[in-house]
Amino acid sequence: MAAIDLNSDLGESYGAWRMGDDEAMLAIVSSANIACGFHAGDPAGIYRTVKAAAEKGVVVGAHVSYPDRVGFGRRDLDATSEELIADVIYQIGALKGVAAAAGTTVRYVKPHGALYNRIANDAKQGQAVIDGIKAVDTSLVLMGLANAPILDLARKAGLAVVAEAFADRAYTPEGQLVSRREAGAVLHDAAKIADRMVQLAREGTLEAIDGSSIKIEAQSICVHGDSPGAVAIAQEIRRRFEAEGIEIRSFASIL
Amino acid sequence: MAAIDLNSDLGESYGAWRMGDDEAMLAIVSSANIACGFHAGDPAGIYRTVKAAAEKGVVVGAHVSYPDRVGFGRRDLDATSEELIADVIYQIGALKGVAAAAGTTVRYVKPHGALYNRIANDAKQGQAVIDGIKAVDTSLVLMGLANAPILDLARKAGLAVVAEAFADRAYTPEGQLVSRREAGAVLHDAAKIADRMVQLAREGTLEAIDGSSIKIEAQSICVHGDSPGAVAIAQEIRRRFEAEGIEIRSFASIL
Amino acid sequence: MAAIDLNSDLGESYGAWRMGDDEAMLAIVSSANIACGFHAGDPAGIYRTVKAAAEKGVVVGAHVSYPDRVGFGRRDLDATSEELIADVIYQIGALKGVAAAAGTTVRYVKPHGALYNRIANDAKQGQAVIDGIKAVDTSLVLMGLANAPILDLARKAGLAVVAEAFADRAYTPEGQLVSRREAGAVLHDAAKIADRMVQLAREGTLEAIDGSSIKIEAQSICVHGDSPGAVAIAQEIRRRFEAEGIEIRSFASIL
Amino acid sequence: MAAIDLNSDLGESYGAWRMGDDEAMLAIVSSANIACGFHAGDPAGIYRTVKAAAEKGVVVGAHVSYPDRVGFGRRDLDATSEELIADVIYQIGALKGVAAAAGTTVRYVKPHGALYNRIANDAKQGQAVIDGIKAVDTSLVLMGLANAPILDLARKAGLAVVAEAFADRAYTPEGQLVSRREAGAVLHDAAKIADRMVQLAREGTLEAIDGSSIKIEAQSICVHGDSPGAVAIAQEIRRRFEAEGIEIRSFASIL
Repeated sequence: MAAIDLNSDLGESYGAWRMGDDEAMLAIVSSANIACGFHAGDPAGIYRTVKAAAEKGVVVGAHVSYPDRVGFGRRDLDATSEELIADVIYQIGALKGVAAAAGTTVRYVKPHGALYNRIANDAKQGQAVIDGIKAVDTSLVLMGLANAPILDLARKAGLAVVAEAFADRAYTPEGQLVSRREAGAVLHDAAKIADRMVQLAREGTLEAIDGSSIKIEAQSICVHGDSPGAVAIAQEIRRRFEAEGIEIRSFASIL
Repeated sequence: MAAIDLNSDLGESYGAWRMGDDEAMLAIVSSANIACGFHAGDPAGIYRTVKAAAEKGVVVGAHVSYPDRVGFGRRDLDATSEELIADVIYQIGALKGVAAAAGTTVRYVKPHGALYNRIANDAKQGQAVIDGIKAVDTSLVLMGLANAPILDLARKAGLAVVAEAFADRAYTPEGQLVSRREAGAVLHDAAKIADRMVQLAREGTLEAIDGSSIKIEAQSICVHGDSPGAVAIAQEIRRRFEAEGIEIRSFASIL
Repeated sequence: MAAIDLNSDLGESYGAWRMGDDEAMLAIVSSANIACGFHAGDPAGIYRTVKAAAEKGVVVGAHVSYPDRVGFGRRDLDATSEELIADVIYQIGALKGVAAAAGTTVRYVKPHGALYNRIANDAKQGQAVIDGIKAVDTSLVLMGLANAPILDLARKAGLAVVAEAFADRAYTPEGQLVSRREAGAVLHDAAKIADRMVQLAREGTLEAIDGSSIKIEAQSICVHGDSPGAVAIAQEIRRRFEAEGIEIRSFASIL
Repeated sequence: MAAIDLNSDLGESYGAWRMGDDEAMLAIVSSANIACGFHAGDPAGIYRTVKAAAEKGVVVGAHVSYPDRVGFGRRDLDATSEELIADVIYQIGALKGVAAAAGTTVRYVKPHGALYNRIANDAKQGQAVIDGIKAVDTSLVLMGLANAPILDLARKAGLAVVAEAFADRAYTPEGQLVSRREAGAVLHDAAKIADRMVQLAREGTLEAIDGSSIKIEAQSICVHGDSPGAVAIAQEIRRRFEAEGIEIRSFASIL
């Protein structure tokens, strides 16, 4: 029987500001990438979300970011390796504290936003993130972009990795994400997206933007919850997986 | 042989700004209250200080604060219990992450500044701090003001506590700190301060501001390192303790 | 013909986080209290809202706050007078810059949240706010709580003042706001609220929570826009005012 | 008689953290680049420094930065033009408010750190900075790196500009700054630096790192005050200028 992980970015509210529907998404996903306070997430809000994740048996990961709250971690920042290593350590530690208080544990680390994109290919910042993770806890898993060099870099450093695909993104024939600046980069049709994800989960393949078939080796699928439309897409994927007998379960139990 | 702990606030630099002489103080104290990022301390700076503490065998504690960097945590803040519990959890967790990376562990929690003063007597915020500590790690010790109600509150909640005295502060006949607003509240004469601390370590007594003798049950003495004069006082205390055969060692090894 | 000002808190989004419906509220109110970055509001978001206010002819005021973004400025903070004066100056200046860029000017200052409540009765912090305002621009008007001592304090200091009433709040027989902790403190019935505000605009009176009639001398009415229900109440007030021939116009044109 | 401006970065303390010796530098320079809160400077500290500058007749400029306090504005940040324009407007406005309160005015804008270096050659971010300045006050002068494209870009946009040279930096034969990563990039000999600056003020030339003579058209010289050694260099430059009859005066009075 096929099985795959569904992950989503949660805990992204901040103080009086709400973002996303964490309750709804925790009923859909098997892994929750929890903001650690640098791009989003205040301690009280993170704690609420991690408690809810623990209650629902959703696995928790640290969604570490550049320190850029006003830019939501979406802006490339030339942090030094020393800064980045320490920022990663601090954020993982903070979430581990929250997870301990909530009766669960942090199982993985997924860099957020600009940091995620940068380390996909930038070996210097990528190595800093890896070094930060390993310094805190060598049993943590790094979640990164399928087909990106960061995964090999992490493996060579002795970290377990999980490759993820993006449910609502188009892929190039080379297996890369189509840039958001290009037409057709983001998919909106829930049924079509669910079809694609069923194929991905079963066969490890996707149709690229040019119609060719590509291989995407992914143990997790990233779904979004930051709009009612996004939640609906995630729900449709889950519904289809259940109908098709594809088990949704954390990579942590698959690895 | 008499033995007592010396503690000091460290890791209080922030980014490009330096504060205190952590290297000098780590050669003097047995316990380091490390800023956790809310009133002071950026991740890279905290990490450097915790690594230095680990190398010198100085015990590490979490110096948790209200979130008020511009006010250095010195301003009373009406945080709710929910906020405060989560803020404490987050900060302890962050420092635990840094400590793990540095090869040491967080052994105690000392609230900082306005939070320290407030919880000395405010049972609501005090309970929130206690709840936050217990939620993360019940083996953590709370360091608090000798003779203050917070110590009993923590003991009743099942936390181990360490009472501390302030080397450079005058005490009332009732065993309370003389308010900084009053004349003579802060002591500056290193030799006289060292005399007082020797008496405290040996006999558990101090001369109050009115000349009477008071009992101060303290397992730790707080010394400062935020000015060359403060470092000199701390050094003189250490020198005298060594000359008098009073062992300086972490309360963690005494408890 | 009766005329009164309607004001609302706007510009309270922050980076990727949205709060309130500024466009909708700018079609209702005559005065916009614009967040200045300390409790809410990033520069780009503030600029968008101030430009929209300028286009609609809505008068702009500086909604100054304690520096407490994670607490949304809702937590009492023991700032010193020196800090508070400078915080007020800085925030007013920042908004003046944004207003200049948007082709409008800052006409008044309304403290936000915990600072608003505190200075209503706390003469020390109140004086600091007044001193900060006067230091930047003596022609600025202070908007404050009707019947509160801060208004007299400001008048004595030479500042023009505007007293405001809260549309959705109950009042004590003494003309004070009923505490939010008490039952019936917040009103929810749009029609009833509109009735009350018509009476306030026409006669300067309101029914207190005990049924007695009280005098509220207010030149402005505060309405909220932070939920669809709040916007609907504000819209109903405007609709009723228009139906009853009560002109909604900035106090700035009334003074 | 030759005349030139001396400028320095001031107001860079933050809350409890001190940086630089503003009092000493205000006795040396004719222009003060004042931190605006994004990389450094809290309102109370900025206000103190601007008041001191006003008392000493030192001209005040806005030292605008990326929003990166923990990185001291020294890290390149991919801000959008919309963000950057608004950030510049906000910071200039804030400093204008502080300057008004201190009885002086903001006369120029000098971007700080990574933003300064980036816009020297990056036309997109450069244009955003120019647009932000012009949106607030078209009479403001942009201070930028001598020989850098940003100066022409600003002139074309209708802004007055001031070119600056760096007292303690070596130059390439092409008139560019030698990268800090290269040997000899930073000069330390106060007498030699003063010699160079006398030549620059008199003849508009400097000896490049390869010994060739280059032309540097600069109306201002940047000196540092962030260490006792830096202050001593700045003092030596001033002493030599006075001895040589070179007047130190703000470009504002030269333009």
